[in-house]
Amino acid sequence: MTDSPNRQPALTPPPQLIEVASKVDARLQAVLDEQIGHWTTIDPRLGEAVAELARMTTSGGKRLRAAFAYWAWRGHYDRHPDLRSDKLATSGIGPEELIVNLGAAFEFLQIFALIHDDIMDDSTTRRGATTVHVQNANRVTEQGWRGDPRRYGEGVAILVGDLGHVYADQLTNGISPRGRQIWDELRIELNLGQYLDMRSAAAGELNLATARSVAVFKSALYTIVRPLQLGVCLHGPVDIQLLEQLDAFGRPLGRAFQLRDDALGLLGDEETLGKPVGDDLREGKPTELVAFAMANSSPTQKTVLDLVGNPDLSSDQVSQLIEVLSETGAIAHNEQEIQSLVIAATEALDRIDFAPEAVDALQAMAQYVAARTS
Amino acid sequence: MTDSPNRQPALTPPPQLIEVASKVDARLQAVLDEQIGHWTTIDPRLGEAVAELARMTTSGGKRLRAAFAYWAWRGHYDRHPDLRSDKLATSGIGPEELIVNLGAAFEFLQIFALIHDDIMDDSTTRRGATTVHVQNANRVTEQGWRGDPRRYGEGVAILVGDLGHVYADQLTNGISPRGRQIWDELRIELNLGQYLDMRSAAAGELNLATARSVAVFKSALYTIVRPLQLGVCLHGPVDIQLLEQLDAFGRPLGRAFQLRDDALGLLGDEETLGKPVGDDLREGKPTELVAFAMANSSPTQKTVLDLVGNPDLSSDQVSQLIEVLSETGAIAHNEQEIQSLVIAATEALDRIDFAPEAVDALQAMAQYVAARTS
Repeated sequence: MTDSPNRQPALTPPPQLIEVASKVDARLQAVLDEQIGHWTTIDPRLGEAVAELARMTTSGGKRLRAAFAYWAWRGHYDRHPDLRSDKLATSGIGPEELIVNLGAAFEFLQIFALIHDDIMDDSTTRRGATTVHVQNANRVTEQGWRGDPRRYGEGVAILVGDLGHVYADQLTNGISPRGRQIWDELRIELNLGQYLDMRSAAAGELNLATARSVAVFKSALYTIVRPLQLGVCLHGPVDIQLLEQLDAFGRPLGRAFQLRDDALGLLGDEETLGKPVGDDLREGKPTELVAFAMANSSPTQKTVLDLVGNPDLSSDQVSQLIEVLSETGAIAHNEQEIQSLVIAATEALDRIDFAPEAVDALQAMAQYVAARTS
Repeated sequence: MTDSPNRQPALTPPPQLIEVASKVDARLQAVLDEQIGHWTTIDPRLGEAVAELARMTTSGGKRLRAAFAYWAWRGHYDRHPDLRSDKLATSGIGPEELIVNLGAAFEFLQIFALIHDDIMDDSTTRRGATTVHVQNANRVTEQGWRGDPRRYGEGVAILVGDLGHVYADQLTNGISPRGRQIWDELRIELNLGQYLDMRSAAAGELNLATARSVAVFKSALYTIVRPLQLGVCLHGPVDIQLLEQLDAFGRPLGRAFQLRDDALGLLGDEETLGKPVGDDLREGKPTELVAFAMANSSPTQKTVLDLVGNPDLSSDQVSQLIEVLSETGAIAHNEQEIQSLVIAATEALDRIDFAPEAVDALQAMAQYVAARTS
C-alpha cells in the first residue's frame, strides 16, 4: 500500500464539488453526533453501533451523488425560482436545508452499500480504514468473546449498514412524491445491480452485455442519472422531457465513470484509492475491459484471461493479466470509450435549459468523473 | 422435526387477525407479482432476486404487526371519522388502501429482518423453508459456480433482505409526517435492538437488564407499540396522550410476546414453529428465563447454565439445561410473568377511547400473543 509504481498526484476535485461536499459533510456529522449522543445516553453499547457507521462515513468519500443532485437542483430552480417552495407545507423544512439533506441521504445510502459490499467481497480496507466486518471480527478475538469472529463481524456490518440505510431514508423526508418515487426506484436498482454483478462473477458470465448492464444500474443510474433527476424534482412534479434530457447526459457519463473505475482498479495507485489493486480481477467482476479482451484475444491470451475470478491470484498473475489486457487493446479501447462518452455527455448537457452557473459546475464534474485518480 | 414429545395442537389465531392477514397477503402478493414481472422482462436474472424475497414472504408468518396497526387505526378513526382523510392530497391513496399498504410494509420489514437475522444466526430453516443464504450457497455447489458458496449465499441474502427493506419503505408512501417519524424510529430501534442482542450473546452478558432491554426494542416497540402508534397517526397528527396510552398497552404485551417466544424456543414444537428448538441456548441469546435461572441457581446448577452460548450443544445438553431452568423455577416464573403482563396490558387497553369492535379485536390479539404455540 505504500510506493506503488503507478504513483501519481491525485487529481484535485473541482471547487463546485468541494462546496457541496463541505455542506453535506457538516450535515452528516450533525446527524451522527446527535444519534451517538442520544443512544449512548440510553445504553453506551447502542452508541457503539452508530459510532461504527460514523467511522465509515467520515473517513472520506467524494460526495459525487450529492453534488450531481445539488447542481441539477440549482440549474433548474435558479432558472424557475417560482417553482421553488419557500417552506414546504408538510415538513417545515426550507429548500436549502432539504437539498443538503438529500445530499446527505445519498452519502448514507452509499455508506450502506459499501459496508454491505465489503462483506460480499471480503474487503479488508475501504477508504484507507479497516472495514466494519473485519474491525468487529477482530474485536471478538481481542476481547476473548465467544462464537465465530467472522460471523459476528459480518453480523455487525449487516446491522451497521442497515442503520445507514434508515438514516439515508430519514433524510429524504420532505421531498416531493415524484422525488420519492425516484428515490425508491434507485434503491431497487442499486440492490439488483449489485445482485447481477455478484451473480455474474460467480457464474463466470463475463460478457459485454452483462458488464454494460451492471454499469447502467450501479453507476449510470445510481450515481448520476437518479441524483440529477431527484435534484429537479425536489419541490414537485417536473416535465418528463427534462428527466429524459438528464438521462441523456447522465447515462454516458455514468458509463464513463464505471470505465474509469475499472481502469483505476487495475492501474490506479493503492494509496490514493484507499483499496487494493487487482481485487476486481480476483473477484471476477464483469467489466467491459475484460469482456473486450476476451472477445479480442488469441488462444494463448485467452488462457491467461481464464485466470480472472480466481480469488488467490498472485501479484505476478495480476501483472500478467494486465499485460494481456494491454496487448489485446482493451486498455486503450477503454480510454477511447471514456473520451467519446464524455463528449456525448457534454453535448447532451448543452441541450438542457439550466442556469449557467450550474452548467459550468456539471461540466467540471463531468471532466472530473472521467479523469479522476481515486 | 417430526414427532416431538411436546407436540400439541397449534392455537388458532383469532378471526380479527386472519381478516387482516388475508388482505395484507393479497397486497404482498400483488407487489411481488408486479416486481417479478417487471424485472424478469428486463433480465430474468434480476427477477430471480425478487423471487427469493417472494419465497420467504409467502411461506407463512402471522402478520401480527399489520393486525396491531390495522385495529388501532380502526379503533381511532371509527371513533373519529372526521379525522380520516378520504383521499390523501399528496399521494392519491385512499385510507383503506393505505392501512393495508402499511400492514404489507410491516411484513416486508419483518422479512428483511428475518433474512438478515438468519445470516447472523446461521439458521438453516425459517417458517419451514430453507433460509435464503443456505439456498443460495447450495446453488453455487449445485451449479458448479466458482468462489466460496458461503460468501455467495450470504451476499445474496444481504441483498434480498435489503430489497425487502426498500419495498417496505415504498409501501409507507402517503402516511402522515408524524407516522413517518415513528416508522423511521422503529427501524432504528429494530437494528439497534438486534445489535444489542448479538453483542450481549458474544460478550456473555446474560443479565436481566440486558434481556429486558433487548425485549423492549425487538418485541415491545417493534412488534406492538410502534405498529399501534402508526395506526392512529396514519392520516395526521394525534394527541400525545393516545400515543402514551398505546405505549402502556403495548409495552407489557410486547414483553409477554417475548417471554412466550423464549419459552417456545425451549419447549415448543419444532414442526409448528418451523425452526429448531434449543438454538436460543446455542446462540447464548440473552433471555429473562436464563437470567432468572442464573440469579437463582446453586453452584452445581450454575455449572450447567455456563453451557449457554456453546454453539455445539448436543440435544442431551439442551435437555439438561431445560431441566435446570425448570428446577430453578425459571420456567414457572416465566409463565407467571406472562400472565401478569397480559393483565396489565388488558387494563391499559380498557382506558383507551377506541371503537368497541377494535377493543374486542385487540383483546383477542393480546390473548393470542401470550398463549400462541408458534
